[in-house]
Amino acid sequence: MNTIDLLDVASGIEKAELVIKSANLVNVCSSEIYDETDIAIAGGIVAGLGRYKGRNEIEAKDKYAVPGLIDGHTHIEMCMLSVTEFARAVVPRGTTTVVADPHEIANVLGIKGIRAILEEAKATPLNVFCMAPSCVPSTDPELGLETSGARIGAEEIKQLLQLEEVIGLAEVMNYGGVIAKEEEVWTKIEVAKALKMPIDGHAPLLRGKELNAYVLSGVGSDHESVSYEEAQEKLRLGMRVMVREGSVAKNMKNIAPLLKSADTRNCMLVTDGDRTPLDLQKEGYLDHVFRRAIEEGIDPVNAVQMCTINPAQWFKLDGSFGSIAPGKIADIVLLNNLERFDVEKVVVNGTILTDFAPRSGHKYSYPEYGTTVRIKPVKPEDFELKLNLDGKINYRHRLTQINTDKKSNAVSPVQQKNEKICVNPCKSVSQIEGGYTLYTTRKARIIGLIEGELLTEELVEEISGIDLARDILKIAVVERHHYTGNIGLGFVKGFGLKTGAAASSIAHDSHNIVVIGTNEADMAFACNRLKEIGGGIVLCSGREVKNELELPIAGLMTDKRLDYVAKKQNELEDKISEMGCKLQAPFITMSFLALPVIPALKITDKGLVDVGKRKVVNVFVECAQ
Amino acid sequence: MNTIDLLDVASGIEKAELVIKSANLVNVCSSEIYDETDIAIAGGIVAGLGRYKGRNEIEAKDKYAVPGLIDGHTHIEMCMLSVTEFARAVVPRGTTTVVADPHEIANVLGIKGIRAILEEAKATPLNVFCMAPSCVPSTDPELGLETSGARIGAEEIKQLLQLEEVIGLAEVMNYGGVIAKEEEVWTKIEVAKALKMPIDGHAPLLRGKELNAYVLSGVGSDHESVSYEEAQEKLRLGMRVMVREGSVAKNMKNIAPLLKSADTRNCMLVTDGDRTPLDLQKEGYLDHVFRRAIEEGIDPVNAVQMCTINPAQWFKLDGSFGSIAPGKIADIVLLNNLERFDVEKVVVNGTILTDFAPRSGHKYSYPEYGTTVRIKPVKPEDFELKLNLDGKINYRHRLTQINTDKKSNAVSPVQQKNEKICVNPCKSVSQIEGGYTLYTTRKARIIGLIEGELLTEELVEEISGIDLARDILKIAVVERHHYTGNIGLGFVKGFGLKTGAAASSIAHDSHNIVVIGTNEADMAFACNRLKEIGGGIVLCSGREVKNELELPIAGLMTDKRLDYVAKKQNELEDKISEMGCKLQAPFITMSFLALPVIPALKITDKGLVDVGKRKVVNVFVECAQ
Repeated sequence: MNTIDLLDVASGIEKAELVIKSANLVNVCSSEIYDETDIAIAGGIVAGLGRYKGRNEIEAKDKYAVPGLIDGHTHIEMCMLSVTEFARAVVPRGTTTVVADPHEIANVLGIKGIRAILEEAKATPLNVFCMAPSCVPSTDPELGLETSGARIGAEEIKQLLQLEEVIGLAEVMNYGGVIAKEEEVWTKIEVAKALKMPIDGHAPLLRGKELNAYVLSGVGSDHESVSYEEAQEKLRLGMRVMVREGSVAKNMKNIAPLLKSADTRNCMLVTDGDRTPLDLQKEGYLDHVFRRAIEEGIDPVNAVQMCTINPAQWFKLDGSFGSIAPGKIADIVLLNNLERFDVEKVVVNGTILTDFAPRSGHKYSYPEYGTTVRIKPVKPEDFELKLNLDGKINYRHRLTQINTDKKSNAVSPVQQKNEKICVNPCKSVSQIEGGYTLYTTRKARIIGLIEGELLTEELVEEISGIDLARDILKIAVVERHHYTGNIGLGFVKGFGLKTGAAASSIAHDSHNIVVIGTNEADMAFACNRLKEIGGGIVLCSGREVKNELELPIAGLMTDKRLDYVAKKQNELEDKISEMGCKLQAPFITMSFLALPVIPALKITDKGLVDVGKRKVVNVFVECAQ
Repeated sequence: MNTIDLLDVASGIEKAELVIKSANLVNVCSSEIYDETDIAIAGGIVAGLGRYKGRNEIEAKDKYAVPGLIDGHTHIEMCMLSVTEFARAVVPRGTTTVVADPHEIANVLGIKGIRAILEEAKATPLNVFCMAPSCVPSTDPELGLETSGARIGAEEIKQLLQLEEVIGLAEVMNYGGVIAKEEEVWTKIEVAKALKMPIDGHAPLLRGKELNAYVLSGVGSDHESVSYEEAQEKLRLGMRVMVREGSVAKNMKNIAPLLKSADTRNCMLVTDGDRTPLDLQKEGYLDHVFRRAIEEGIDPVNAVQMCTINPAQWFKLDGSFGSIAPGKIADIVLLNNLERFDVEKVVVNGTILTDFAPRSGHKYSYPEYGTTVRIKPVKPEDFELKLNLDGKINYRHRLTQINTDKKSNAVSPVQQKNEKICVNPCKSVSQIEGGYTLYTTRKARIIGLIEGELLTEELVEEISGIDLARDILKIAVVERHHYTGNIGLGFVKGFGLKTGAAASSIAHDSHNIVVIGTNEADMAFACNRLKEIGGGIVLCSGREVKNELELPIAGLMTDKRLDYVAKKQNELEDKISEMGCKLQAPFITMSFLALPVIPALKITDKGLVDVGKRKVVNVFVECAQ
C-alpha cells in the first residue's frame, strides 16, 4: 500500500486496519510517556496517533506501547542459531530490528554467507540490516597474523554496499591499521564515506591522541568501552557510544553513571551478539540489556530511546524505524510493565505476532552446509610446543627443534632439510640435539583470562609445559578452511580445565578451530571429532566425546531451535564445569581468545599475537622479537 | 588535504596548522562544557581535541568555543542582500552555515535564480546549502490562486536534488494539497523520499488528524508553531520543531517552556529569514535567536545544540558540520561570553576570519538584473474595487459594474461586451446602472493584521471603501512577471497609513507587487515607480516619492552593503511611520499579506484568498461563494 492511500485513515475518513486503543505511549521523539493514546495502523504503517477507530482493535489501557527494539550492533551467528530460529527467539521478546555485522559467517563463507543471512531474514518477521564487514579477516592479510576462510576486500565492500539491506561499514576493528594509514582499511573507509554511510568502530581501550586519529578517519561509533572515562572520552570526541551488556562482556555497570549524567542521544544499548543460547532463553536479548540499564538506575524513557530512535538515527533508519509516529513501520511492543519490559504483545509490520514456523517445506540451505571444517587428521604431536627462533611458532611438519635449559644463555639453531631459519639471539638455550626435546622451564608469555571481559592480559611466568596445579593449559588454533595444516600453539591461564580438552569451530573472527586441553591427545581427538560433525563444539576426555553440539552452518550455527541449543549449552557447560572449567561463559571466552584485535595477547593459527604490536610473538620471552 | 594526511596531526607527530589553546569547549555531542581544551586544526579540519601544539596558536583561556551556528531554515533573499553581503553580515556574528530555501528568487527567476545563489555563495566563507523549493508557486498552479514568475515542477526538483549543495525538499507549504492528495506536491515528496532526503514542512496551526496526515506523507519538520501546544503536538508526532524568532514572527516566548521540559534533540532555533536589515545590523542574526532563547531561560548548551548539531543531524550534514570533533570542518566561534554570545573570533574552514571583500573585480551578475518588474503602466482606476458576481474580483479592463445600496436585497448584474458572467444571488444590491459607481456600504471581508504574526484574521465589517478613520486601507497585488495586467483588490485593517501609498516588489512568494494605499492615485504611482527602479520598495504621497530602496536582483535583493540597506530601512520606516503606519516591521508584514498559504485571509493578483478553503473569495460577503 502506498503512503498516499493511508491518508484517509490518518484523516479519520476511513477506519484503520488495527487500532491499539488507549495505550500509555512511550514517545521517544518528545521523550515522555502519556496515556490514552490510540495508535492507528494500516498497510503495516502507523497512520495516526490520537483518537481513532479500527476494524480491529486491541484494548491497551495501562499497557505501555514502545517502538520495536533495535539492536544496533549484533552478530547473529554468535547465538549459534539460523536467522529463522534467531528471529523466533528475539522478536517475541520485543526486538524487531537488528543491525548485524555478519563478519562471522563472512570469515568462513565470504559474500555468499552474507547473502544467505539476508535471504533467510526475508522470510522472518525480524528486520535484518547488515553492515558490510570491514575486517575479514580481522587483521590486514599483509600482516600475516591469521588465516581466514574468506577475504572481503574493498571491491567486495563496494558490492555489498549496493545491497538495499546493507547500510554501512561494519566495525573497523583494525584500528591499528587505521592509525598506521594501511591502504586496505582506508580504501574501505573511503568507499563508505563517499556514500555517506555510517561507519561503526571498535576501539577497545583506545584513548588520547590515537583515539583522536581513529575518530578523524570517519569512524563514528564504538561498543568496546569498559569504563566511564573511556566511554566519556569517546562521546566527547563525537562518537556514538554503544553500551554492551552480554554474556561475557558486561559494560553496563561501569558506563551507567555516564548514561545518567550525559546527553544520551548519542548512546545506544547493544548486545554485540554476546548472548549465549541459554542466556537468550533465560534472560532475554536486548530486552535484558534494557532491564540491566533500569537496574542501574537509568531513566526508562532514555533507555527505550537508546534501543530505538538512537540506533535508528545513527543508521539513518529513522525514516521508517525507531519511533511510533505517522509514517513509520508499525513495529510496536505492548508491555504490561515498562521497567521489567514485560511483553504482552508484539506487533510487527502492523500485524499481531503469533508464533511463526518456517514456511511449509522451508528448509533454508546455507552454502557448504556441514562441510566447512577442512582439516587433515591431526595427531597429538602436532600440539607439542616446539620453538624455532625466527620469532614465530613453528608449523606442523617443520622439524626444526632446539633443546634448552635455563642454566645457560647461549643459543644456536638446528637447521634441517635445508630450511632457512632467521636466528635471533636468545639467551637461555644451551643444548642442541636432534629430535624433539621439551624445554625444562622457560619464561613464557601466557594468555591471562580476565573474567567477564574479552580483553586478556599478557602474563609472563616460568613454566615447563602444561601445569594443572597452576591452571596453565595448552591452547591451539588449527586452521580449518584451506587444509594448510597451520597450528598456532600457546598457553592459557585461568580456564580451569582439569581433564580432557574442549574444541570449537567458533573462534573469532577467522573461525579456525580453537582447542584448549590438559593433554595433546585429547586436543587432537577433539579437533578430529569436530571435522566429523561438520563443526561445532566438542568436549572430550580420554579420547571419548563427553558432549558435543553440531553446528553445520559454517561451523557456527545450527538450524535447530533455541530450546535444543540452550539445552545443549547447559549440558556442555555442566560437563566442562565437571571437567574443571568454572568460567561463566567458557565457550564464548574460548572463542574470543583467537581474536587478534582485542588486547592484549591472543592466539591464531599463526601463533601468539601481541595485539598492541600487531605481530606474532614467541611463546618464550627470552628470545628477542 | 585528504583526511589521511591529517592523521599525524591527530597523533601529535606533526604540529597542527592552528591550535585554539585552553578553550572552554561547549561540547554539543556530550552536552557539557569543560575547560582547558586545545583544538588542533589542519587542512580546514578539526584534527584533535586535548593537548596539542600548532605552528599558529590562539590563546583561548576563559573563551568559549562553540561550533559555527547553523541556521536550519532561512530565506537569504528576505534580508534583501546579495549572498556576498549576507555572508559578510552573518558570519562575523557566528553563523557559518545556512540551509536556505531559495524559493523567493525561484518564484521570480526559477532554477537559474537558485544556481545564481549557490554560485555566488562559493566565493564567500558562508556554507550555503539549499533545499529544493517545493512550492513554486506556493499553491498548486491548477488552483489558479496566484501568478508566479516561474514554476518548479517535479522534473525541476529532480534536477535540483542532483546538485551537491541541494540537500532536501524545502518547506512543503502546500499542506492542504498534501492532505488532499494533489499529484503535483505528492510527486515532489516521493522524489525526495526515494533519495532519503529530508523534507521540511510548513503547517501553521495544523493540528489533530490533519496534522497526522501531513506527517504521514513524509514531511519531517515544521517552523510555524506559535503556541506551546502546537509545538508539543508536532514534536510528539515525530516532527523536528524549528523555533522561529524573527523581526515579525516571534515564537520563542510561547515555545520556550517546551524547550525547557522536553527532549530538545528534535528542536532547532531558526530565523526563517525573518530578519530585517536593521534588526540584522542591530540585534544580530541567529545569534539573536540564541540570546532570546537564553533570555527565556533555556539551558545554554541545549540552545547551542539547537543551532548546531540538531540542524546538522536533521539535514544529514553532521558528518562535517555542527560539532567540534575530529574530522569535522573547523568552523568555530570563540566567545567572550556564552550567554551573550559575545563573539571574539570566528574560525571558518580552519582560518581566522577577517573582513572579506568580494574578490577584486568581482561583480556577481544575477540573471535579469534590474529588469524583473514587467508591468504595463497602471492607472488609478485600475485600483477601484468593482464587483462582479462570479465570486471573483474583476480584472482590469473588464467593465462589468454593479451599483448597490444597502436598502435592498436584490441583485442583478450588468453584462457588457458579451462577457459571460456567472451570477450568484447577492442580497444587498439594488440599483444597476452603466459606468462606475461605488457601493455605498457593503459587508466586506477585510484582511485583519495581527501584530507580530504572519497569520491574519478574516474580519467582516460594513464598509463604503477606504476608511482612514477606521484604518481600513486598500490593498492590491499587481502581477509583475508576465504583463498579464492581473490586479487583485481588497481591504486591509491595522496597517495605519494616513496618507499616500507603499508598494513593494517583495510579496511572498510569487513576488508580484503588493501595494497598500490611502488613495488609488498614489497606489498607481508607486507601482509605476517600482518598474522604473527595477524593483524594490517605494513610499509616495501626492504622486511624489517620499523614499525608496531599489532592489535590482529579482526585485528582492541589492548588491549594496548591509549598512546602506539598514540605513534605507531606517529611513523608510521613519517615513512610513510619519505617514501613519506604526507597525514594527511594516514592509515584511506587507509582503506576507500576499502569501496564500498562511491563514486566514490573504491577497494575490487573483484576488482575496481564503487560505483554509484554498480558493479566491469575494471581497463582499453577501455573495455566496
